[in-house]
Amino acid sequence: MVAGRLASTGGPLSVVRVGLLGCGTVGGALLEIVRSDGPGIAARAGVELEVTRVAVRDLAKPRSLPIDADRVTDDAASIVVDPEIDVVVELIGGIEPARSLVLGALRAGKSVVTANKQLLATSGPELFEAAEKAGRDLLYEAAVGGAIPLVRALSVSLRGEPIQRVMGIVNGTTNYILSKMSEEGSSYSEALAEAERLGFAEADPTADVGGYDASQKAAILASIAFSADVVAGDVYREGIEAVEAADIDFAHRLGYEVKLLAVVEQTSEDGAPLEIGVRVHPTMVPSDHPLAGVRGSFNAVFVEGRHAGELMLYGRGAGGQPTASAVLGDLIDAAGRLGAAEPRTGGARHHVAIRPIDELRTEYYLTLDVQDRPGVLAAVATVFGEHAVSIRSMEQVGLGEGARLVFITHLAREADVQATLEDLRHLPAVSRIGGLLRLIGPEPARG
Amino acid sequence: MVAGRLASTGGPLSVVRVGLLGCGTVGGALLEIVRSDGPGIAARAGVELEVTRVAVRDLAKPRSLPIDADRVTDDAASIVVDPEIDVVVELIGGIEPARSLVLGALRAGKSVVTANKQLLATSGPELFEAAEKAGRDLLYEAAVGGAIPLVRALSVSLRGEPIQRVMGIVNGTTNYILSKMSEEGSSYSEALAEAERLGFAEADPTADVGGYDASQKAAILASIAFSADVVAGDVYREGIEAVEAADIDFAHRLGYEVKLLAVVEQTSEDGAPLEIGVRVHPTMVPSDHPLAGVRGSFNAVFVEGRHAGELMLYGRGAGGQPTASAVLGDLIDAAGRLGAAEPRTGGARHHVAIRPIDELRTEYYLTLDVQDRPGVLAAVATVFGEHAVSIRSMEQVGLGEGARLVFITHLAREADVQATLEDLRHLPAVSRIGGLLRLIGPEPARG
Repeated sequence: MVAGRLASTGGPLSVVRVGLLGCGTVGGALLEIVRSDGPGIAARAGVELEVTRVAVRDLAKPRSLPIDADRVTDDAASIVVDPEIDVVVELIGGIEPARSLVLGALRAGKSVVTANKQLLATSGPELFEAAEKAGRDLLYEAAVGGAIPLVRALSVSLRGEPIQRVMGIVNGTTNYILSKMSEEGSSYSEALAEAERLGFAEADPTADVGGYDASQKAAILASIAFSADVVAGDVYREGIEAVEAADIDFAHRLGYEVKLLAVVEQTSEDGAPLEIGVRVHPTMVPSDHPLAGVRGSFNAVFVEGRHAGELMLYGRGAGGQPTASAVLGDLIDAAGRLGAAEPRTGGARHHVAIRPIDELRTEYYLTLDVQDRPGVLAAVATVFGEHAVSIRSMEQVGLGEGARLVFITHLAREADVQATLEDLRHLPAVSRIGGLLRLIGPEPARG
Repeated sequence: MVAGRLASTGGPLSVVRVGLLGCGTVGGALLEIVRSDGPGIAARAGVELEVTRVAVRDLAKPRSLPIDADRVTDDAASIVVDPEIDVVVELIGGIEPARSLVLGALRAGKSVVTANKQLLATSGPELFEAAEKAGRDLLYEAAVGGAIPLVRALSVSLRGEPIQRVMGIVNGTTNYILSKMSEEGSSYSEALAEAERLGFAEADPTADVGGYDASQKAAILASIAFSADVVAGDVYREGIEAVEAADIDFAHRLGYEVKLLAVVEQTSEDGAPLEIGVRVHPTMVPSDHPLAGVRGSFNAVFVEGRHAGELMLYGRGAGGQPTASAVLGDLIDAAGRLGAAEPRTGGARHHVAIRPIDELRTEYYLTLDVQDRPGVLAAVATVFGEHAVSIRSMEQVGLGEGARLVFITHLAREADVQATLEDLRHLPAVSRIGGLLRLIGPEPARG
């Protein structure tokens, strides 16, 4: 194609030789984009991308790659040390062998582009250290939020900004399910079945609906926003499996949507050493908040900075083409920076204190199924009071056996709310404790 | 502050000496941020920013700048050639003397950060050429969308992406006015008065409400998205002065919001030389489109890429602190890139063909005040038909003297719609032609 952003008329194009590790959905999309739009990329970016070699796991598997067969190998280790290759793109996923291959590529003096959230959320600190040492780029725009240019926004554009909090809808499957429940009143299992039917959910949806995928992305977001060593194990995590249609109904009546949010926030006081909170859980988002309008399988990340104010970046968080687009952007950036003095690795990273979830202070939504008789509310309210959890609103729905109390608390401490629930469980008049949802609280302590 | 993203523990900080031209709202906010958060910036970004000198227009004007008085001068020209300065920040605004000073700084080998949309939209091609020639950065994140990191997203992250269309709410004043009209049913003049009262509108609001500010930003967006030489004079422009409360009412009933959009789009066919459309006008945006939810004085830019799909970036488009935050991000980027091999100037730029507005194809909303008698609709419909403008929906509201016909057309050519209006003006039964609003059409030709 000739149309599009036009060519540099300057000197000859620089040719950048790419070694591709892994050739599934994203790798295949990337190869196809480079093949079909190579001249366009050269024209817009002044770089000719030559995919020199591709590593696949199983050479015997039939595939129709837009690349000569003699460039395809099952020996990924030979690619990372190949002197004919400038940049390695890692799209294998998982921890090993991806980790060893990325480390090997960096040690061999190659810049690396990866979309591997699991690897970054587990071995990020080790990889960034290796990249610093090698003086090479380690870029990973595609690892969080697919095509959304949020990694570069946080790590370059907002590098000087004191970031207070980042809240993200970073998993398309769960957002699809929650949107379906919200818009059509579906139950969780109906919405999950529909997501599976449409290919938005895997056969085993645990990684998505259990919040594991989102917690890896939360760790990466925290690492970038606070230049901190944060791994997935640091993240408090709840999935959406327990969210009920009734909770979403109540949320609507109270003016909220329910979203699975990854929240990373600075919680230290002015002058104190950096402490951050990192958590993933279903959250009540006010209907007029920009995150509430993010529907279907879209992703979005909402950033609160002290000077920049509120920012949101929105787009396609998954899929072959959007993810390949983010990899391509990194590839072009890495190509332009080959030989740059300072490698780009997300900046210096430090150990930080992680605030225990018990210390979270926010507002809570919770429901209790109770016996509908005089004195029950008093008994329940007494338990709240004993733990210093103050109630902002209460509504009873249903009568008799079907009576349910719906509470919204004022700002409360997580440990106090959990202790309240524990005591309520022993109250004879309470037959069931339903969904516990946290609200988007005010911004955390401005450190 | 110690909290925030933490310091590089590596070598000594690099000190970057900044010359600041202009010290109004944004300049003052920048100085204050550098003063109060200097250690934080150093910790997060590994750069110590030293504002070496500041140029103001009138030394006699009393001000309390957080900088020694002997660093303040009214001789801006001396700053741009000062060998003690590494990066010049231009916050004077307007064309001269800003243009000469920026050119002078680049020629003196300094990188330049500017927030000057008017200058870029007028003299952009000349400035970028000077930057290329000098091998220095010319960064301007703050010129469009304030704190929203959209310039870097388009020029770096999406540099390889074939962009089809960018649609932006890039003027906070008009978005505030239209939001007020939409949410409270205010008239245009009431909403404008409220905007003036709250400081969202200038004493002379023409630049905002007339769409001039947005058209400068449209030119800059087009320049980046298509690496094209586009100036404000290339942009088709309409303001919001003629938008009536009744139009917004109808829009709501039909499922739309009215927004002032800057639209830049690639309109060339596959293989043909690049042609783009660049326009600013009030637009009917479907209520479930992400741009429809951008309320108040917020800005947002919606990007459609062939591979990346739909992206949106949202945030504070104006104000001292948000704009200073964007300037700061550029300053840190420029500081890190001092001595880089390849300057960053927004990429190679080329002359492109601008599609005449007459050739626009979209859907239209229009209203006619008519005499309420038999045969009028037939006469009106005949005029539409004669110009090949096909009607998708028609509704009559009011009766007798107050009868109004509200039309939505199918996709139609601008020239045909204008010819239709011209003929309708001569139809005796038509007493008044009301608002003409364009709808967000489908994506343009995929070139």
